[in-house]
Amino acid sequence: MAVYTEVGDADLEELLRAYDLGTILSFKGIAEGVENSNFLLRAETGTYILTLYERRVAEGDLPFFIGLMEHLAERGIRCPLPVHGRDGLALRRVAGRPAALISFLEGMWVRRPQPHHCAAVGQALAEMHQAGRDFPLRRENALSLAGWPPLFEMSRERADEVETGLAAFVDKELAALASAWPIGLPEGVIHADLFPDNVFFLRGKLSGLIDFYFACNDLLAYDLAVCLNAWCFEPDCAFNITKGRAMIRAYANVRRLDAAELEALPILARGAALRFLLTRLYDWLTVPAGALVTPKDPREYLRKLRFHLKVTSAADYGVAA
Amino acid sequence: MAVYTEVGDADLEELLRAYDLGTILSFKGIAEGVENSNFLLRAETGTYILTLYERRVAEGDLPFFIGLMEHLAERGIRCPLPVHGRDGLALRRVAGRPAALISFLEGMWVRRPQPHHCAAVGQALAEMHQAGRDFPLRRENALSLAGWPPLFEMSRERADEVETGLAAFVDKELAALASAWPIGLPEGVIHADLFPDNVFFLRGKLSGLIDFYFACNDLLAYDLAVCLNAWCFEPDCAFNITKGRAMIRAYANVRRLDAAELEALPILARGAALRFLLTRLYDWLTVPAGALVTPKDPREYLRKLRFHLKVTSAADYGVAA
Repeated sequence: MAVYTEVGDADLEELLRAYDLGTILSFKGIAEGVENSNFLLRAETGTYILTLYERRVAEGDLPFFIGLMEHLAERGIRCPLPVHGRDGLALRRVAGRPAALISFLEGMWVRRPQPHHCAAVGQALAEMHQAGRDFPLRRENALSLAGWPPLFEMSRERADEVETGLAAFVDKELAALASAWPIGLPEGVIHADLFPDNVFFLRGKLSGLIDFYFACNDLLAYDLAVCLNAWCFEPDCAFNITKGRAMIRAYANVRRLDAAELEALPILARGAALRFLLTRLYDWLTVPAGALVTPKDPREYLRKLRFHLKVTSAADYGVAA
Repeated sequence: MAVYTEVGDADLEELLRAYDLGTILSFKGIAEGVENSNFLLRAETGTYILTLYERRVAEGDLPFFIGLMEHLAERGIRCPLPVHGRDGLALRRVAGRPAALISFLEGMWVRRPQPHHCAAVGQALAEMHQAGRDFPLRRENALSLAGWPPLFEMSRERADEVETGLAAFVDKELAALASAWPIGLPEGVIHADLFPDNVFFLRGKLSGLIDFYFACNDLLAYDLAVCLNAWCFEPDCAFNITKGRAMIRAYANVRRLDAAELEALPILARGAALRFLLTRLYDWLTVPAGALVTPKDPREYLRKLRFHLKVTSAADYGVAA
């Protein structure tokens, strides 16, 4: 839920001068995206999303994100396409914030994914990985292995407020992951946050991927591990092997997973679970009392992490290595 | 900024079964309306707003609001039109809340109104008052003269936190208004909250009025007083007589203001200013620390009220009685 920056009449007029949109028919703040302010803009020429990038997005990363969406769209990935202004630029300032106008993607996100949705996501993820291969820019993953210990430091002291023993558990887990993290697996551009609310479906088919603002260079199979966590657990945090199998198989049909990647899947899934546990833990402990937005419960990812600790091989996710 | 209730897949499917909308193309929470949850729904048959009525709207008042929008729309007032389902009903339950699907109104609200906007609003307000004449339902104005003292009781003790002496000032004002409030002026259905964000303009012309959830029966000239406060002051709280004149004249061109109404305008404007001072004061004092939504500053309406205290006749608003 978000609209952090107000867009005034003068800002809108300036925007109109910068693009060939025709008359603006409506302009409404939309309650999606926690990081940025988003507005739905209907104009004579079409429907667009205006995104104002707020403080949590580093301005220096924007050319990577905008360039990636263009790169992927050119290669047939259905994702929002930045619109270029009369000056040729896709990135500008609106109401004092860095901003981009992007094409509107039809479709809705699925609240309760079924196995066929998981398969569609696996396929789209692999297609995205393939399409991103020759993308020339690089962005390190600030929320990977090396980033987790300093991230945890910000919550460490109060972690046991969420569950007794949590601080010690995470310390142990950080050490275990540091020593077991795989090296040499295929790398590339990953989405890094492909949760159900970032995947649109229309008439039962996947219609697009959105929100590339965590995209970065990292292990491709780690991205699949993020998706397994986000899509293949039931609301009671039980892993659904039918969904896992559907997702991994559909992925591998597009981009072959080598034996080392499949073997590393349990440790990657642990890491991916820890990454979301840590950011949710921080948000949980720092949310202002009485805020309208309820932060997501970090314990969901603690339970997923515990599942992965019991996993012995990729077979537990539905596929044999 | 609002989306208080989540609408799940099953809720949406049920909604689809209730209406003839065709395939849903997108569904997004919108960050407008403080009282209710609003969703923009694009379907094959058109674009709609789904409103879920939250706790601050009394369910018993909904037939008045929904009926009023239909009544006004039938008489040519451009306002959202409730859509009837296959069962003939316009009001139903979605995700456990009372809800209505209404037509989407194109246009944008004006952040910095100019005199011609004020004139357009004056005209539209008078047209609405005329169109509402034969509306058969009644709803008392809970936020009029009799409602202000109990409303102030909820903030009284802490009022001086906002400005020293505020509690005593409001007490005196409540007493003065109670003894001077006009009787016998023309009554009817009023909008009661026609602020700039509730009036849409498209290609320079007024394209519609929205948000009828404070509508009620009260003095028609009081509604004009609300608009004078909301539209005709500059950001520094100086009254703009050009705007006032434009609004009142345009109103009177459609519905004649009689001498008693013009004479009462200063006291009505004081009352209207006090009404928004009181609700803003309450919101200001009760907003949770750190909430994402900043409540509106009650002192804006205190300054407007002080202006009206110096007014001697309607001539100070730009028209002679």
